[in-house]
Amino acid sequence: MSAYQPLPKDKFAFGLWCVMNIGRDPFGDATRRAVSGVRAIRGLAERGVWGFEFHDNDLVPIGATAAQVRKVMQEVRRAMKQTGICCATGTTNLFYHPVFKDGAFTSNDPHVRAYAVQKVMRTMDMAAELGAQTFVFWGGREGAEVDLSKDPVEALKRFREAFNFLGHYARRNRYRMMLSIEPKPNEPRGDTFFPAVGNALAFIETLDPPVAKRTGVNPEVAHIKMAGLNPLHEYGQALEAGKLVELHLNDQKPLRYDQDLAFGSVSLKEAFFLVKLLTDYRFKDMEGVWSFVERNMRLYKMLEERVAVVNADRQLKQMLAEVCDGDASLDGVYAKYSPAAVKRMRSLRLDPNKLANARRLPYESLDQRLNELLLGIG
Amino acid sequence: MSAYQPLPKDKFAFGLWCVMNIGRDPFGDATRRAVSGVRAIRGLAERGVWGFEFHDNDLVPIGATAAQVRKVMQEVRRAMKQTGICCATGTTNLFYHPVFKDGAFTSNDPHVRAYAVQKVMRTMDMAAELGAQTFVFWGGREGAEVDLSKDPVEALKRFREAFNFLGHYARRNRYRMMLSIEPKPNEPRGDTFFPAVGNALAFIETLDPPVAKRTGVNPEVAHIKMAGLNPLHEYGQALEAGKLVELHLNDQKPLRYDQDLAFGSVSLKEAFFLVKLLTDYRFKDMEGVWSFVERNMRLYKMLEERVAVVNADRQLKQMLAEVCDGDASLDGVYAKYSPAAVKRMRSLRLDPNKLANARRLPYESLDQRLNELLLGIG
Amino acid sequence: MSAYQPLPKDKFAFGLWCVMNIGRDPFGDATRRAVSGVRAIRGLAERGVWGFEFHDNDLVPIGATAAQVRKVMQEVRRAMKQTGICCATGTTNLFYHPVFKDGAFTSNDPHVRAYAVQKVMRTMDMAAELGAQTFVFWGGREGAEVDLSKDPVEALKRFREAFNFLGHYARRNRYRMMLSIEPKPNEPRGDTFFPAVGNALAFIETLDPPVAKRTGVNPEVAHIKMAGLNPLHEYGQALEAGKLVELHLNDQKPLRYDQDLAFGSVSLKEAFFLVKLLTDYRFKDMEGVWSFVERNMRLYKMLEERVAVVNADRQLKQMLAEVCDGDASLDGVYAKYSPAAVKRMRSLRLDPNKLANARRLPYESLDQRLNELLLGIG
Amino acid sequence: MSAYQPLPKDKFAFGLWCVMNIGRDPFGDATRRAVSGVRAIRGLAERGVWGFEFHDNDLVPIGATAAQVRKVMQEVRRAMKQTGICCATGTTNLFYHPVFKDGAFTSNDPHVRAYAVQKVMRTMDMAAELGAQTFVFWGGREGAEVDLSKDPVEALKRFREAFNFLGHYARRNRYRMMLSIEPKPNEPRGDTFFPAVGNALAFIETLDPPVAKRTGVNPEVAHIKMAGLNPLHEYGQALEAGKLVELHLNDQKPLRYDQDLAFGSVSLKEAFFLVKLLTDYRFKDMEGVWSFVERNMRLYKMLEERVAVVNADRQLKQMLAEVCDGDASLDGVYAKYSPAAVKRMRSLRLDPNKLANARRLPYESLDQRLNELLLGIG
Repeated sequence: MSAYQPLPKDKFAFGLWCVMNIGRDPFGDATRRAVSGVRAIRGLAERGVWGFEFHDNDLVPIGATAAQVRKVMQEVRRAMKQTGICCATGTTNLFYHPVFKDGAFTSNDPHVRAYAVQKVMRTMDMAAELGAQTFVFWGGREGAEVDLSKDPVEALKRFREAFNFLGHYARRNRYRMMLSIEPKPNEPRGDTFFPAVGNALAFIETLDPPVAKRTGVNPEVAHIKMAGLNPLHEYGQALEAGKLVELHLNDQKPLRYDQDLAFGSVSLKEAFFLVKLLTDYRFKDMEGVWSFVERNMRLYKMLEERVAVVNADRQLKQMLAEVCDGDASLDGVYAKYSPAAVKRMRSLRLDPNKLANARRLPYESLDQRLNELLLGIG
Repeated sequence: MSAYQPLPKDKFAFGLWCVMNIGRDPFGDATRRAVSGVRAIRGLAERGVWGFEFHDNDLVPIGATAAQVRKVMQEVRRAMKQTGICCATGTTNLFYHPVFKDGAFTSNDPHVRAYAVQKVMRTMDMAAELGAQTFVFWGGREGAEVDLSKDPVEALKRFREAFNFLGHYARRNRYRMMLSIEPKPNEPRGDTFFPAVGNALAFIETLDPPVAKRTGVNPEVAHIKMAGLNPLHEYGQALEAGKLVELHLNDQKPLRYDQDLAFGSVSLKEAFFLVKLLTDYRFKDMEGVWSFVERNMRLYKMLEERVAVVNADRQLKQMLAEVCDGDASLDGVYAKYSPAAVKRMRSLRLDPNKLANARRLPYESLDQRLNELLLGIG
Repeated sequence: MSAYQPLPKDKFAFGLWCVMNIGRDPFGDATRRAVSGVRAIRGLAERGVWGFEFHDNDLVPIGATAAQVRKVMQEVRRAMKQTGICCATGTTNLFYHPVFKDGAFTSNDPHVRAYAVQKVMRTMDMAAELGAQTFVFWGGREGAEVDLSKDPVEALKRFREAFNFLGHYARRNRYRMMLSIEPKPNEPRGDTFFPAVGNALAFIETLDPPVAKRTGVNPEVAHIKMAGLNPLHEYGQALEAGKLVELHLNDQKPLRYDQDLAFGSVSLKEAFFLVKLLTDYRFKDMEGVWSFVERNMRLYKMLEERVAVVNADRQLKQMLAEVCDGDASLDGVYAKYSPAAVKRMRSLRLDPNKLANARRLPYESLDQRLNELLLGIG
Repeated sequence: MSAYQPLPKDKFAFGLWCVMNIGRDPFGDATRRAVSGVRAIRGLAERGVWGFEFHDNDLVPIGATAAQVRKVMQEVRRAMKQTGICCATGTTNLFYHPVFKDGAFTSNDPHVRAYAVQKVMRTMDMAAELGAQTFVFWGGREGAEVDLSKDPVEALKRFREAFNFLGHYARRNRYRMMLSIEPKPNEPRGDTFFPAVGNALAFIETLDPPVAKRTGVNPEVAHIKMAGLNPLHEYGQALEAGKLVELHLNDQKPLRYDQDLAFGSVSLKEAFFLVKLLTDYRFKDMEGVWSFVERNMRLYKMLEERVAVVNADRQLKQMLAEVCDGDASLDGVYAKYSPAAVKRMRSLRLDPNKLANARRLPYESLDQRLNELLLGIG
């Protein structure tokens, strides 16, 4: 049982907001009491959590004076020192105050845009002081319901201008944290920019190169499922691009309001495949990338063990060999373009009718075997 | 009325497959007769269409001999010469034959991958001979239902290897067409790679630079709506990135099977905003980019006229000014990073409580006015 | 222009909660000030609205004493008398207080269930005093996220027990209002019971007959679209069953969080078809059924006018005749079962191959003509 | 292992169409060879399947002569006698031939409607001869894409007229099979009538009472998920209404094209809860209702065993007691309406603030424990 205890090397981190959330929703009043940010940090540390994530306003109220900020930061640093918990991630609340009701970096009001950039600068200073490894941008209100009100081309240009400035600010101040964009398709806006992982990855490539280089994405399972996409594929593309900075592991039913349920609540299988992706790739080419789950460290560990079982299963290995193993003679036949390769490609005699049946695709058996291993049978 | 006649400068193009489709679906038999590709080309030309798009197998059957291909190509060139229709786009059918049942470039079988690359090389030769401006890649079966059967990281590497090779092939042969990836979230596979515009844009940036440079995307309205995303935002991001090569204008209900209904069938408002985006940007920075609608040139022209009405409406202009106009004193305040800009940013006195109410956001009136203009009232 | 002014006979009614909503969402603070219920009633009356709808707690706080209730009721009756506005609908807030966090009538706690029934009894008394025509039940928290926690069969039995009791309560007290269930698929619960119109209609048939007789449904456009269904079909079935008690006309993007946008914001076409359904049927078999829009009386009136245009258009009439007109000789051929009818049915010579092409189905032209009339062209 | 062998008492049945499907889709050619209906029946029997389901055209081609039908029926009866397999269900193909392209019972063409009724009469004769227990109606093409083309109120009236006639036909001929409607939200039509279980249940209540009495529903998991609803709740309502005639157990990703994947392919948890519902209720009040799975008898049996484990788990029992156990003193307090009950209800002193925290709702722990038992841990 203790095999499932979280260890520091697992690098599980939690947002303070998960603990501080008072359980209010658009149709109902608070169901829990508020706790302070510092208390939340200590509470996480007591449960063996490695790191915490914070919004500026989880720690200090909006409009706090420099002195107020200094005082809170001292308390936070003391709590960190006493408990050993680290600061994993900082991020700016650019969505709660009504000033952001029509967006922050993409607001139509240039004062609001400037105010948002100012607010991020200050949060970056705090994150750097706490040694955060990552600094996240979630554009919660960067979007529209009335399409006539916001030109999407102009909006991206505005977002880029702000992001570039802040990327240079981090660089010039020698803040070492990675920057990261968190995609989400909608809610609280009708449509938000960067609805899916790809939109954020593509946007990053258009930033100033030194900023782009230190910017990645931190996809959240529930956000991907709100867009009806396959988390395995979305995480896979980010990972393959070398841009997976951080993970938010939770769950929800696809294509509904933001439910933020615990990891594996809805789909054990999807949860399993994410853990498998991270396990299979972490030790190959992902050195230095770390992961965290928001609520369910225990399930993560259980699935990690199950990944090992699946990866070692002889029946599956045999079926996968049948499905996946190639003909070595074709390895790299078009990996590098050259006249010789073209000639070779032209000369290959490949009969589609034969190829169509050249290999069994026992996908039903593959999936049934996986189900059995997930159920702990056989 | 004749104001809505399509003109050559509109560059409306249609896929031969739209005309050749025999109206079969998974639950029902053919409801129309087949016509040949050459006949389809002549039929389009008779209706004043500017260009046609083809799959290799719209013109020649799979496994056709070189002589057969030559004969058909002569007929096609004759039809083009006689009618003046041009070839807008070529693309390879990598989904119909059972050989592709588990994918083409991402198949687990290296023979199938090699066969797919061979097939594209031949289609590129045809497209170049017909003067196609664009060459499209739609990975209809590049995906999975059983996630265990295909590693998404490996799959992207396979897709890239094939794409790079073909990009170099086009380059070395001095084929001048742009390459383009067509995103789609699912169907006929459970999940397909490149589900949304962003995934394709992000992938393009990882290609060999000379290949990346000539590669863009050709989003289809219905595919975007199958993913539940906002077409205006998806097209907007592609356009802003300078990667919008071509458009497929059709329609469908969001988050359902591929319905391929005529443009504007489901949402007049979405159709309006796409035409507005293209109209507003075509004459600014999109020179050389061309557009086409798959079925409804007439509606496109009507909406184009309505865009002009909306853009000229005084009431809307006034409301938009209120919503969008900035304070010139803040222009570019953080456009370029410098110590002075940082100092300026720090010194700006911005009060969120005042800013929150600094400008009315008459979005309800804006939308109501738009509705009225769309209805032709007032 | 004044053709679009709302008239008393339009019977437009608004929920007080629409006016009293302070614009808070799960990610952001209030953007508007609260107003009192009585003030909201007066505000609606000033705008020419015919009736208002209320929750008990829009007028009196939870736990109000009998004296407090009496005082507020006097103020409300005075406002009604002075302005002429009527009370269209009453309903009980069974979702805001944390006591309802796991449901009201379907809560696992019998005390909570009893408390909910008590609360409805009191609200019914208020609604009857104000002359409400309808009394609505929206089971906002009757559902689950963790399926193990609530047996759906047991839950329906609990809901029925409560509903029957309250139906008898209204009857014995000679309260004349219709009872009505408002379906919604999810939010604020992961899944709510009565997700679609059909689920509510089917449930009503299982109530005690005298209760069932006076119970119908009040579908909301946005709730239907949250379930991805076609509002025209959902309203159509309720209307055909004689169970359409009331309508909530608003809008939103399908399959997303509850957006509650103004009627016609997202889909003009869907809005048009709803107005058409109500217009076409109101004067046939719907006497006594009344409708209201939540925000956009003006758009409703515009679409009403457009329905008249569409219904009178000669081109459309001709196409519809082609599509819909029958062969009178077959009228009622199987309307009544009898041996003679069976014999007649057996003897009919019907050739599917001929029938398949017996009539043109010019659906593309039909839709294009509709689009043109909606755009106000031709 | 043999614990998971299907037994006759499990009453697993399969559609012949599952076996006869040639694996064609809108984008690809057949990937399998056709087999005859009789061969499919024998194949199922060899695999220990209890019963088969058929469409008329799985056995005889459209337009078959009486002699042809007789010959095939003899072969089918011989195969049944020799192998012991029974006929579970008959149904009419009202969707494949182009005559049905705009619907069958709801077609705008009265000849088509009459032809459809004729075709069902003949299939009922076949089903009765084979001893089918159930006769299914799936209105595959009863719907619309162009809403102007079909009035939904009129469509329901047409469907009812046809259904009543056929119900009486079955009755007068003493055909003992239950009739059943299969809901589906869309595909192959843009929107189909009876999109969800509730719509069918509600419609049944409007049939002639003797027909209504013998008519129920046969929901399919994948169809429910295409509508984005919770299968547990949809099945639960049908079961609670005593109208669950038959089950089609398969799976797919929510809100996508019809994928028809094997039961449990996508969501093990949903599959588990369905088996739990059937297990928990079969032996209470469902005598005579039988179930079948389309493909995965083995997984069903495994989940059946896991249901027993979950139902017996002490930790879960304890948590569920905490969540669900009531206060006996309130049992039935409003179960029967009477002045005394009203008095009792008024007099109960229930404090919402206390009730709100009266019981822990350990839903996170509940779900985590379930996950562990599903994974076979602990």
